[in-house]
Amino acid sequence: MADDDHSTRGSYVKGKGEFARDTRYIEDRILDDPQAEWPVEPGRYRLVAARACPWAHRSIIVRRLLGLEEVISLGLAGPTHDARSWTFDLDPGGVDPVLGIPRLQDAYFARFPGYERGITVPAIVDVPSGKVVTNDFPQITHDLSSEWRRYHRPGAPDLWPQDLREEMEDVMQRIYTEVNNGVYRCGFAGSQDAYEKAYHRLFTALDWLEERLADRRYLMGASITEADVRLFTTLARFDAVYYSHFKTNRQQLRDFPHLWAYARDLYQTPGFGDTTDFVQIKQHYYIVQTDINPTQVVPLGPDLSGWLSPHGRESLGGAPFGEGTPPGPVRPGEEVPAEHRIG
Amino acid sequence: MADDDHSTRGSYVKGKGEFARDTRYIEDRILDDPQAEWPVEPGRYRLVAARACPWAHRSIIVRRLLGLEEVISLGLAGPTHDARSWTFDLDPGGVDPVLGIPRLQDAYFARFPGYERGITVPAIVDVPSGKVVTNDFPQITHDLSSEWRRYHRPGAPDLWPQDLREEMEDVMQRIYTEVNNGVYRCGFAGSQDAYEKAYHRLFTALDWLEERLADRRYLMGASITEADVRLFTTLARFDAVYYSHFKTNRQQLRDFPHLWAYARDLYQTPGFGDTTDFVQIKQHYYIVQTDINPTQVVPLGPDLSGWLSPHGRESLGGAPFGEGTPPGPVRPGEEVPAEHRIG
Repeated sequence: MADDDHSTRGSYVKGKGEFARDTRYIEDRILDDPQAEWPVEPGRYRLVAARACPWAHRSIIVRRLLGLEEVISLGLAGPTHDARSWTFDLDPGGVDPVLGIPRLQDAYFARFPGYERGITVPAIVDVPSGKVVTNDFPQITHDLSSEWRRYHRPGAPDLWPQDLREEMEDVMQRIYTEVNNGVYRCGFAGSQDAYEKAYHRLFTALDWLEERLADRRYLMGASITEADVRLFTTLARFDAVYYSHFKTNRQQLRDFPHLWAYARDLYQTPGFGDTTDFVQIKQHYYIVQTDINPTQVVPLGPDLSGWLSPHGRESLGGAPFGEGTPPGPVRPGEEVPAEHRIG
Repeated sequence: MADDDHSTRGSYVKGKGEFARDTRYIEDRILDDPQAEWPVEPGRYRLVAARACPWAHRSIIVRRLLGLEEVISLGLAGPTHDARSWTFDLDPGGVDPVLGIPRLQDAYFARFPGYERGITVPAIVDVPSGKVVTNDFPQITHDLSSEWRRYHRPGAPDLWPQDLREEMEDVMQRIYTEVNNGVYRCGFAGSQDAYEKAYHRLFTALDWLEERLADRRYLMGASITEADVRLFTTLARFDAVYYSHFKTNRQQLRDFPHLWAYARDLYQTPGFGDTTDFVQIKQHYYIVQTDINPTQVVPLGPDLSGWLSPHGRESLGGAPFGEGTPPGPVRPGEEVPAEHRIG
């Protein structure tokens, strides 16, 4: 997302200063149906993401876990963006090499001229027409699992196990409102009162997760699911950014024994740490969100080497990929530089 | 200090964005000499401080360690101030009960009409005339030790031992430029480059202190000196404020084993923790320094209960007060509320 698009629409508080996320997305779906408007088709679509953004990071992880790299290409916007759009400033010439555009908004405008809502990542773009098909981030990762199943790699995990589906939806809903969005509610609070309410809400949820993960290796039990992907992207940013920048500072992630071991377990699993760019993450929040950090100075700390320390979660048993296998090495050209992984 | 007075003079960066402190003070001294312009005299002077301010906190600690409470009264400005002056907003009617003024600048103006430099704390005010005698903070604590010696309590420590004086001046100079001021240099840096230089300078000094305190109970050896007072006031604010607000985040104080145990040892010694008001400290920085925190939201965290945990420094030997004794209970009416001590 364009950091909640507050920079593009300037209205991130409401009522008593509480942050409210704009959740109006382009909700088309790419379906495994040749008659669909947007049918599944290898090579036709491009996932545009930004490593910095937690909502986009989800889609990068899921694409890799499922082995969809060869059928859906990946375009990456840089960590910062201007008031209106994410930009392809990391690419040679500042232009996405497949879409041939300098700014993601060009793909939104191709779809809807004059599009006025947020220019968000992740977005899936139809390469032939250059049009955004969808930016509905929870639907995007869901559909990578379900609609693109025929193209999953051998050994791809089942991230939405049918028998857990109902409980998983509840868990993910709470993680979304209380944690993924909860950190933003703290950081973007427009008053002391709104902040304090948000802080208590967030830590109530983190205490719940700490307890839940005491005897479960993953959120839903023995194996990684979509719920873990969704929690991980917030946890990865917690000590690096949210603790200070969003004032989520009752304690650091590293002060939750189970949650921190769980986060390291995931980080050290192919697909998670190897898609996490701490340098871009810090640059994004500290440079873009000038309402919170007007100096735009990016902190040099904290020391993140703890992410590589042993987590001991194997003792809980489980099989990270269920009956499947871990993904292989990161696709050449898509690696996060080593110095950005523990930045 | 009026948070480096940057709010009153608006020029806290120079050259490549490096913070420069204005060090022009009113440098009169109160001397143990009846012929002096400002002679030592019990009951004549009032120390005006603010618990929030590290430079003023020094003088509160020293006054108490030396038992000068009955001869020099204490006026306390609130944690926040307006663009021009600290104010007595905590006092009934918003007026200092002894000086009868609502704003500290009134005492500066009584001395120098139209005084244009920073309205800083600590300041010592001559009660009969209502004029500021001095706001030269290092000289103030020095003179409480030397010029007011006749009025020290029985058992008052020698905070400036003659045989250590030369080394102590070197240690204090390095602490002043690299640590006390070093944290501000990080927080007020006007560019990424200036910040990064400041960060490395600060942590180089903290690494030096960590090593120095590995086998010395206090900075100068077996007993507390003025050098410890000067270091303590910065350490007390480190995890609570500087780590996030000034981006001094290579690590927290609690991540330095020796420095953190040393800080807790002092905190748990009469005169240090009982003069430390974490609530006012946080309010001051987060509410006053809107260049850094425009929302003025004050973080609820971090958990500061660790300050009360055992420090184990007794094993290094030493005698905190040398041949003296600890100060007794805090003077009635001057207590920091319990809920502000571990806030």
